[in-house]
Amino acid sequence: MIKYPDGSVYKPHSKKERGHNKDKVELSISASNRGMDLENDINLSNEYYRNKHIALITKRPTPINIVKVDYSHGARITDAYFEKQSTTDYNGVYKGRYIDFEAKNTKSKTSFPLSNIEKHQIEHLKMVLEQGGIAFFIIQFQVHQEVFLLDASYVIEFYEHGERKSIPYDVFKEKAIEIKQGFSPRLEYIDAIEKMYFKS
Amino acid sequence: MIKYPDGSVYKPHSKKERGHNKDKVELSISASNRGMDLENDINLSNEYYRNKHIALITKRPTPINIVKVDYSHGARITDAYFEKQSTTDYNGVYKGRYIDFEAKNTKSKTSFPLSNIEKHQIEHLKMVLEQGGIAFFIIQFQVHQEVFLLDASYVIEFYEHGERKSIPYDVFKEKAIEIKQGFSPRLEYIDAIEKMYFKS
Repeated sequence: MIKYPDGSVYKPHSKKERGHNKDKVELSISASNRGMDLENDINLSNEYYRNKHIALITKRPTPINIVKVDYSHGARITDAYFEKQSTTDYNGVYKGRYIDFEAKNTKSKTSFPLSNIEKHQIEHLKMVLEQGGIAFFIIQFQVHQEVFLLDASYVIEFYEHGERKSIPYDVFKEKAIEIKQGFSPRLEYIDAIEKMYFKS
Repeated sequence: MIKYPDGSVYKPHSKKERGHNKDKVELSISASNRGMDLENDINLSNEYYRNKHIALITKRPTPINIVKVDYSHGARITDAYFEKQSTTDYNGVYKGRYIDFEAKNTKSKTSFPLSNIEKHQIEHLKMVLEQGGIAFFIIQFQVHQEVFLLDASYVIEFYEHGERKSIPYDVFKEKAIEIKQGFSPRLEYIDAIEKMYFKS
């Protein structure tokens, strides 16, 4: 294993992955940096799924409150601030069904803290479930290098009725589906959706 | 009918609407101003549908490309510009099905011009249909004071194979469903969805 100055490491692919991409080497980011890449991995996976006509999932743009626009050289925003997303980051369609999810990562080994989930998002996901949509979280445990798909109902339950403000790692091992990580797509989360919601 | 300086007119409600809102008068904006209100009407209708637990449809935030952020007093965006929406403005879920649409208005009496629809949006809607989602346009003919729901397939057809870059008004009269306008919701477009896609 080779360590690079930016903290990334060179890790050879597994046999199966090597088979797919013989001429390529890949930089696998070390656990401490991986969190920042979860969003990027999902975006790349969405691109893959779109190009392969498997699913159409898009990221909602970050909502921004615009205070001032300068029109002297085209429209240029000169004063604005970020707003909190009142929904989730991703939604779309797979096999006609509505898909809605939020992605989060944690550095904890033992549980996923619920502190960075907004009440608005919980309300939103409850309504998705009520409308017959598919709602879940993609949670990355950085230290374990594992990514899980957990149905939103568990998160809602722990958020509203849990004794502590976190979901134990064991719940993921038991109730969630681990998302296979690869080169392309980075996160095979549609496979996890298939297992969780379409298995007859 | 009373005309106000800003171009709006006072128009009494129909009997049915009056019945619902006895103590209220409403300013009905004249045809020339109505276009700007289409987005607002849809947003209010979405709020109504959400509050009544009928459907969950949200507007995608306008995508913005951020150039510079000043962190000296919290995060303040000091330079940014608007990006073109590569998808559509609205999506969501109704009865488990994925819903995706774009809203546009026209001042023309005789046809809806396709010039303000982006190729990216057409591609996006084609993929929605391919994935089994429900895709349509909400088109407002300002002069006629009519709002239609037209399935995306017609728009795609005219966009890609039409001889002229517009869809005749007659096509709307024949193929679209007129959306009933009222006080709350402003646009009863879920009724139109029901008629168009859920009638067995």
